[in-house]
Amino acid sequence: MKRKNIPSVTINRLSIYHRCLEKLIENIDKGKPKYISSSEIAEMTGINSAQIRKDFAYFGEFGKRGIGYPLLDLVRELKKILGLDRKWSVIIAGAGNLGKALVNYKGFQKRGFMIKGIFDNNPSKIGKKLDHIFIYDIKEIGKFIQAENISIGILVAPADSAQEVAEKMVAGGVKAILNFAPVHITLPPEIKIHNVDLSIELEGLTYYLNL
Amino acid sequence: MKRKNIPSVTINRLSIYHRCLEKLIENIDKGKPKYISSSEIAEMTGINSAQIRKDFAYFGEFGKRGIGYPLLDLVRELKKILGLDRKWSVIIAGAGNLGKALVNYKGFQKRGFMIKGIFDNNPSKIGKKLDHIFIYDIKEIGKFIQAENISIGILVAPADSAQEVAEKMVAGGVKAILNFAPVHITLPPEIKIHNVDLSIELEGLTYYLNL
Repeated sequence: MKRKNIPSVTINRLSIYHRCLEKLIENIDKGKPKYISSSEIAEMTGINSAQIRKDFAYFGEFGKRGIGYPLLDLVRELKKILGLDRKWSVIIAGAGNLGKALVNYKGFQKRGFMIKGIFDNNPSKIGKKLDHIFIYDIKEIGKFIQAENISIGILVAPADSAQEVAEKMVAGGVKAILNFAPVHITLPPEIKIHNVDLSIELEGLTYYLNL
Repeated sequence: MKRKNIPSVTINRLSIYHRCLEKLIENIDKGKPKYISSSEIAEMTGINSAQIRKDFAYFGEFGKRGIGYPLLDLVRELKKILGLDRKWSVIIAGAGNLGKALVNYKGFQKRGFMIKGIFDNNPSKIGKKLDHIFIYDIKEIGKFIQAENISIGILVAPADSAQEVAEKMVAGGVKAILNFAPVHITLPPEIKIHNVDLSIELEGLTYYLNL
């Protein structure tokens, strides 16, 4: 499998397929093998079926012409590809409102993302807990990441300290960062950064309102 | 301009180009017209230059071969296309941690998104303010949207009430919804919904960690 050449837009779509198909198998009898066609997946996801077949083709031959894809195998394979067949240890840097919202966000744990700690520089927050998870001093973040073997950091620090906190995370051993800070972070190329920009999400809507 | 046929991935990229170019013009002397090439934009955004030229071609002839795109005109045109040359009135349904984080998010106002009200069903929150913005009874949401001519609703209600709240927003006259609720919302096809799924954002990272 030449996995390194898969475009990131395909990865995003695989995540969407996985989500839809997982919901589907919750409702079928596990005893019976069930097939699903690309056009059925298209209907559920809104992604066109030619694109779906092309996306699955990156990972070898899943489907049978005229029958479709074996549902359980497909979901198992998608989980494996996306790294969702295991648990991931995560930390959150920033115990403000967004940090709190992320701690309370039920979806993370359900998906195998275990929040191991929250970090902040505010003395009135350090030592307290958010939803059973300790808030530690931001100074400890590198040591903690190393000791707990954390691979993913969620960055919700303010813009002016985001770069510094990101560097501390990387020094500790984090391999990927989900960045909510409204600022561009520069890190070594082997570190994967995914920026979530909340106003870009809104801008995507105004285009359609403006037609 | 056949604007209706532009794929949504192109719209997302236009938003990214706009963001990068806008930062750039903050630093140039307004007196001098300046050109920028697609390969310079490629370097800033990480999107390849053939894709950039293709994206801009949807909107007619901006560039000059061998010279590039006139920077100020390009930014002005992108703003117009994306609907960012005007202000938009927005409401937030849900005054929990995520609702609070969104109210405090400085990016919205800077981009022309004016939060006019927050809505919740919790009596202990109704009547209070978050960052100078009133929290109203969720029952009032339809009337408020109509009276204030709100076109965009941000939905951060819990999963079990999200559909109902979305319907109230649409009944009031909202044309687009940014949905943070971890649930599928069904609305008339003319209403634009954009779902933000925070665990999908994390899943996009684990693929790369898993290579």
